[in-house]
Amino acid sequence: MANHPVVELTSEASWNLIEDKFTPYGKETLVKLVAFLQDEVYPSSKLYHAQIPKDPVQRWKTVVPVIEELKVKARKLGLWNLFLSNAHYPQHGVPLSNLEYAVMAEILGRGGHVASEALNCSAPDTGNMEVLARYGSPEQQEKWLIPLLNGEIRSAFAMTERYVASSDARNINTSIRQEGNEIVINGHKWWISGAGDPRTKVHLVMGKSDPENPNGNIQQSVVIVPADAPGIRVVRPMEVFGYDDAPEGHCEIIYENVRVPVSNLVLGWGRGFEIIQGRLGPGRIHHCMRSIGAASKALDLMIQRVTDPSRKTFGKFLYEHGSVVAEIAKSRAEIESARLLVLSAALQIDKVKAKGALKEIGIAKFVVPEMACRVVDQAMQAFGAEGLSQDQELASMYAQLRTLRLADGPDAVHIQQVGQRELKRAPELHRRAAEFHRKEEAILRKAGLRAHL
Amino acid sequence: MANHPVVELTSEASWNLIEDKFTPYGKETLVKLVAFLQDEVYPSSKLYHAQIPKDPVQRWKTVVPVIEELKVKARKLGLWNLFLSNAHYPQHGVPLSNLEYAVMAEILGRGGHVASEALNCSAPDTGNMEVLARYGSPEQQEKWLIPLLNGEIRSAFAMTERYVASSDARNINTSIRQEGNEIVINGHKWWISGAGDPRTKVHLVMGKSDPENPNGNIQQSVVIVPADAPGIRVVRPMEVFGYDDAPEGHCEIIYENVRVPVSNLVLGWGRGFEIIQGRLGPGRIHHCMRSIGAASKALDLMIQRVTDPSRKTFGKFLYEHGSVVAEIAKSRAEIESARLLVLSAALQIDKVKAKGALKEIGIAKFVVPEMACRVVDQAMQAFGAEGLSQDQELASMYAQLRTLRLADGPDAVHIQQVGQRELKRAPELHRRAAEFHRKEEAILRKAGLRAHL
Amino acid sequence: MANHPVVELTSEASWNLIEDKFTPYGKETLVKLVAFLQDEVYPSSKLYHAQIPKDPVQRWKTVVPVIEELKVKARKLGLWNLFLSNAHYPQHGVPLSNLEYAVMAEILGRGGHVASEALNCSAPDTGNMEVLARYGSPEQQEKWLIPLLNGEIRSAFAMTERYVASSDARNINTSIRQEGNEIVINGHKWWISGAGDPRTKVHLVMGKSDPENPNGNIQQSVVIVPADAPGIRVVRPMEVFGYDDAPEGHCEIIYENVRVPVSNLVLGWGRGFEIIQGRLGPGRIHHCMRSIGAASKALDLMIQRVTDPSRKTFGKFLYEHGSVVAEIAKSRAEIESARLLVLSAALQIDKVKAKGALKEIGIAKFVVPEMACRVVDQAMQAFGAEGLSQDQELASMYAQLRTLRLADGPDAVHIQQVGQRELKRAPELHRRAAEFHRKEEAILRKAGLRAHL
Amino acid sequence: MANHPVVELTSEASWNLIEDKFTPYGKETLVKLVAFLQDEVYPSSKLYHAQIPKDPVQRWKTVVPVIEELKVKARKLGLWNLFLSNAHYPQHGVPLSNLEYAVMAEILGRGGHVASEALNCSAPDTGNMEVLARYGSPEQQEKWLIPLLNGEIRSAFAMTERYVASSDARNINTSIRQEGNEIVINGHKWWISGAGDPRTKVHLVMGKSDPENPNGNIQQSVVIVPADAPGIRVVRPMEVFGYDDAPEGHCEIIYENVRVPVSNLVLGWGRGFEIIQGRLGPGRIHHCMRSIGAASKALDLMIQRVTDPSRKTFGKFLYEHGSVVAEIAKSRAEIESARLLVLSAALQIDKVKAKGALKEIGIAKFVVPEMACRVVDQAMQAFGAEGLSQDQELASMYAQLRTLRLADGPDAVHIQQVGQRELKRAPELHRRAAEFHRKEEAILRKAGLRAHL
Repeated sequence: MANHPVVELTSEASWNLIEDKFTPYGKETLVKLVAFLQDEVYPSSKLYHAQIPKDPVQRWKTVVPVIEELKVKARKLGLWNLFLSNAHYPQHGVPLSNLEYAVMAEILGRGGHVASEALNCSAPDTGNMEVLARYGSPEQQEKWLIPLLNGEIRSAFAMTERYVASSDARNINTSIRQEGNEIVINGHKWWISGAGDPRTKVHLVMGKSDPENPNGNIQQSVVIVPADAPGIRVVRPMEVFGYDDAPEGHCEIIYENVRVPVSNLVLGWGRGFEIIQGRLGPGRIHHCMRSIGAASKALDLMIQRVTDPSRKTFGKFLYEHGSVVAEIAKSRAEIESARLLVLSAALQIDKVKAKGALKEIGIAKFVVPEMACRVVDQAMQAFGAEGLSQDQELASMYAQLRTLRLADGPDAVHIQQVGQRELKRAPELHRRAAEFHRKEEAILRKAGLRAHL
Repeated sequence: MANHPVVELTSEASWNLIEDKFTPYGKETLVKLVAFLQDEVYPSSKLYHAQIPKDPVQRWKTVVPVIEELKVKARKLGLWNLFLSNAHYPQHGVPLSNLEYAVMAEILGRGGHVASEALNCSAPDTGNMEVLARYGSPEQQEKWLIPLLNGEIRSAFAMTERYVASSDARNINTSIRQEGNEIVINGHKWWISGAGDPRTKVHLVMGKSDPENPNGNIQQSVVIVPADAPGIRVVRPMEVFGYDDAPEGHCEIIYENVRVPVSNLVLGWGRGFEIIQGRLGPGRIHHCMRSIGAASKALDLMIQRVTDPSRKTFGKFLYEHGSVVAEIAKSRAEIESARLLVLSAALQIDKVKAKGALKEIGIAKFVVPEMACRVVDQAMQAFGAEGLSQDQELASMYAQLRTLRLADGPDAVHIQQVGQRELKRAPELHRRAAEFHRKEEAILRKAGLRAHL
Repeated sequence: MANHPVVELTSEASWNLIEDKFTPYGKETLVKLVAFLQDEVYPSSKLYHAQIPKDPVQRWKTVVPVIEELKVKARKLGLWNLFLSNAHYPQHGVPLSNLEYAVMAEILGRGGHVASEALNCSAPDTGNMEVLARYGSPEQQEKWLIPLLNGEIRSAFAMTERYVASSDARNINTSIRQEGNEIVINGHKWWISGAGDPRTKVHLVMGKSDPENPNGNIQQSVVIVPADAPGIRVVRPMEVFGYDDAPEGHCEIIYENVRVPVSNLVLGWGRGFEIIQGRLGPGRIHHCMRSIGAASKALDLMIQRVTDPSRKTFGKFLYEHGSVVAEIAKSRAEIESARLLVLSAALQIDKVKAKGALKEIGIAKFVVPEMACRVVDQAMQAFGAEGLSQDQELASMYAQLRTLRLADGPDAVHIQQVGQRELKRAPELHRRAAEFHRKEEAILRKAGLRAHL
Repeated sequence: MANHPVVELTSEASWNLIEDKFTPYGKETLVKLVAFLQDEVYPSSKLYHAQIPKDPVQRWKTVVPVIEELKVKARKLGLWNLFLSNAHYPQHGVPLSNLEYAVMAEILGRGGHVASEALNCSAPDTGNMEVLARYGSPEQQEKWLIPLLNGEIRSAFAMTERYVASSDARNINTSIRQEGNEIVINGHKWWISGAGDPRTKVHLVMGKSDPENPNGNIQQSVVIVPADAPGIRVVRPMEVFGYDDAPEGHCEIIYENVRVPVSNLVLGWGRGFEIIQGRLGPGRIHHCMRSIGAASKALDLMIQRVTDPSRKTFGKFLYEHGSVVAEIAKSRAEIESARLLVLSAALQIDKVKAKGALKEIGIAKFVVPEMACRVVDQAMQAFGAEGLSQDQELASMYAQLRTLRLADGPDAVHIQQVGQRELKRAPELHRRAAEFHRKEEAILRKAGLRAHL
């Protein structure tokens, strides 16, 4: 069974651990996925970047031809919307478990943004489709979900705000209020991914509809806003380490008296917090698996570089110098253990839903991106200055991974949550310790010894 | 299924991942094991230590009563020799896979030396039983294996030598030569675990029978030597951070013209290297799982301490200070990922034998003991000076774990082997990269772009 | 100047940095110190340990002969009480600055406990002499300080309590109350260093004389208690890992209705907190410098081991394997930077007293012992199992250094204090930032640009 | 003395350590420097970036107005060419030691590229001026050094080559050969800093003039090439992460049959290796000090952010969450110790020249940039996504610091060199150990004990 094509790109041992949890459909899809990515998608990445103009205006008006061609092929092959498990989304989903998709997400992660988008599996569309599939009205689904599922349009999710510590959702300032049959939106957002893309036709905007409500979890609502609604102003793209990620972008946006019909409200007034909670679990795992794919790819590149005879110095291969072999071994170990963590979390979601897997998701969320940054950073170092440049994908990979230590909550938030969850075990541990000491004392007494030292 | 008793002591998510790989017998044994350890074995640890005299001579002459009582009970319950899988040892083994025993080994690891010995699962006897079961002649098995399997005697494996870098087996100096019908042994060993125990009746001694053989792997032989053979001199116990681990001990031993019959040769002349190779794989995994149990126990203790109201300082619980919560979260993450690594390695051994699992074993070997040392060290810090003392088990646990970064090869050896194994992937990676670049160029050409930048 | 004998044992660059801050007396003393330690003290360490009986009772009744011989020689050479700077202790001190003694303390640290005691510079006597010299009455000084300065007796400082989180001094439980002309002491202490030594004639006991006082800093008093006072019971020695550090020891002690005359009160009622505050600064630096000496010694040993031809494996020196060279380089870098940190703190104490050097002392306190533990741990690893044993001094060195991460406050306390001190810079930083932005805006405006982006 | 203006931006304790090594001129210059930077230079940084056009062509044709204005002011103030110590460059240098300039370099480092360039102290001009001042002929100095010293032109140093592992100078491929009275240059370089700048009038080109010479250190020569010489083609700017650092840039350049008169040869045929060796020492220290300035600035920014009331989450300041205070404390400790390392190296250069300070320079070179990257990365994390963006200077600071782990030799090279230097101490350590054991044995024998265990 070690001969499954996925083994070449991931790991035999982890495949052995989970293979029996794959359906025949899952295995077949995986085989097709590997072939399609290797034959068509991975090698199209350079073309994709070449098709984006350097001009600071034109690059934001571009629909990259190669990506649209790949999407047609992917859909024809049935490699489409694989992220949407029919276990959770019976109507629109595909028959794949989270575990099955997690493996696929790693393979996608080796291909960067191009791979995910080519299969209609790229954020923020994925999360938005989940929201609309779960919470959208039939009309909302008809109008926005179906075109998204078809890959005909793209979308944005407008949550993060400028001048606000928005990792605490209660700090959000954007105002969402009803006026007659309309909803009026005023707010100042930034880091709105996808908002730069000419194909983006819709924003899901999170704001406060009931800011004075004493219950901080029902102050927020989510509204569907067409991207061309009057009053929306895309101020500028935000850059990450100098990258603007055009045409998708992460934009600063001002919503000024933007008006939409009341029917654009998602789920109901005050349900915004509930909506974003439901959006977070599996998506985090997918980010993690893609990160593992990226780290794994970076390690492969590093191995190629340090064994490249044209890179010898002082008569020796790079791997014969210093600690290179040890670094590679440690990176390999970190990748393997990170993959197991995420697979275990994905299975846990399958078994007991995201709510029962919060510990595993939280651990993966703070362990994996940092690990991937470290592995990629080390690979960059092996490549010398070239590793930091546009001639290798490592530097942009790093920038992308670095954002994941902040996106969906900074590392520290997840670390604290996992730690607090551990502390909740304290009463049970104290109870068990007391029981243990009773037994210990009984045993000591029976042996004629004083019960305590 | 999360309600399985093992979940309380290990992890629900990892149990979910492997439960379907357990046989009904495996599950049943696991339940019994947890109950027996919690009810009888763990609470006997303090008595065990109290029953060892402080006197520097008497402590080496002691058969600790409580351990012998526990052994009787364990055997009656069928919790006996669980390490010996009948997949590898059909005649003497129990019907448990490596994966199944790995889970049990973690639970044993929470109970320190006492737990393993109580179930006749403690090193070095485990490895010695494996050697005798696999390579011993019927007479050798009758005389030494059966009493070992019965827990009637204990044993030692004499490999490491004083004044010699014996992690390279070719450096070994002990001479093993035939004189007539006898084998004569001369050598200077140390760190021979178990050699201090009055119950130890036999040494397996590794030495050179053909030191000039150009093939370094057939110079060695292994000989069975009764512990009371004339010429054996136990010089002294070696200490680890001040601990002598009496009565078992890790002793310095001089073999001076020790004579045994030729029939005491194991497997055949020149087969010593082969014997120790066969001895190493699963045992390393068991050490790793026990280490995870120890780390997991240490984290539990730390959580108890930092939530103990009597340990408040400046009006706050310890966990409310500084980075304690983050440390706990990170330790939890490290324990979970380490467990998954070792379970994955154990399954890999089950699927493709130890030889096919060398990567996974190697990774576990260098990742787990260091991780466990770190977790225990951090727990010690939370306990203050008490954590370093005889009043908590943490310091002795640390000393024990610290030796595992050296036993069966120091970390660096395993790191290098895993790294070298990665480098062997280079030709395949270069081949794949060439293929990738061909495809990439074809795609660029087809799009009318120059094939390279 | 690089030829100064101290350079061989420390560092040329740091000597160049501070040499002009040494007086001629300081330099001369340093030369004598190096010679005496190398010729007489360092080589006596093995004899010292050999002269301590193994017997669990006798080892606590021993005055080690060689240490008394070395003390006579040291005193004759003027290498005596070097820790006591006459800048702070004009009556009893020696004409050395903290910086000068800091360099000497590093050299002492290479010789372990023997070196410090041989020069009458070992804790807890050093701190106790400081207390008595600064706060003792003429009678107290006559009776206890003079014999301590003469090295005729030893002493203990009883602060830490069992069952109490005593890193917060307000948690201390020991009762100190006046009855007529007597003071009555009741308390349960542990980790009282020196209390096992037959030469120890006096305890300074810290307890609460006014436990209900709303000002938590004047509840405590310190009382001088003769070691043979009725009611003192030394319960047992505490062990660190497996070491008991006999004959000095770190003992558990119960004070039960111990009575001393009121004249044994130090400084005055309620002055206990003040006394221990005054005791902490320079002593912490000395511990740090000794730790650097230990780390530096460990690195020397590691270099010897990895270049030892008898330790070759697979035909290569140990240093030719893996990451050994990199580990050595990093340890060297850490030692050099730690030394500079401590020297800088020592100079800061000289310039602006301990109170003005709290930042530097705090940084040294949490950086140095952890660094030293890491360097020694790595050296142990290079030595294999022998490194953990009684045949090398590394393991006991490690145990000693490990306690320093807890003694005088655990790492976390110092980390928090340094961090809080940084936060106190916030108002000034905000003020400066506002000023900066005003200037920036003026410059942008003058250039015809909008003041903010 | 703690009131010196430099203390506000660096550290009181390190100032106390070195103040007496400053001349009155050095102190006076330092005061002027701090004032000028704070009043004029730091606040001009935003204007500098605003004056660089976004257009991908125009940005490379720009002389940024504000930098030229600042240069005029700086020169008038005597804050000019401070890097060029007259101890090494008596004719053109300023009366500052390396130690004195090191302190200034840290302050410059807080202001990024703008600060260094405003004072004519920016690489690669600094190194090129050193080369011309030390090795240039009077004609070469007249033509190129004087305008550089005057800040009228800029320059490039062309060493690194594409497709070549050029950290080993013997791998360099560029051909430099004489044809009649001319030198003909053919080669393919990249990462040539400054080559994009319209003010750059001259390249110093390193190549092989005698590639077959068995002595690898005399194969190379350095030639002065006017930037507008026919045959020079600037192919493209290299990017670091997504930054192109226009207008200066780090360019790929092809030299194709470029011809210059023989008089443009620097120092002589085959002296190229000697020239680059002489160029490296002090410059590395300056990079390190600038890095410390950057790290120190980043920590200041982090402290401001975590104490900013508008960034509270869940009702608490950021510093009240998780491990923030501990991270700040550790960063502070790392900055302080790094500064001391570099100051100590600078003083060592002053005392015994760069050759005698190779250990200290090497340590600083591998410790400081990595430390600075870590500190800045942590500050970025505190700022959330904004920290990675163009709205804070942290991300570009990180990119710049990240290149320093590769420039002038990757970390690993310096780590190996420092490690190898330590190994050279082995014979002396073995000699001392033998002497020690002789003394130890004599002492044991005299005490009537067997000399060895």
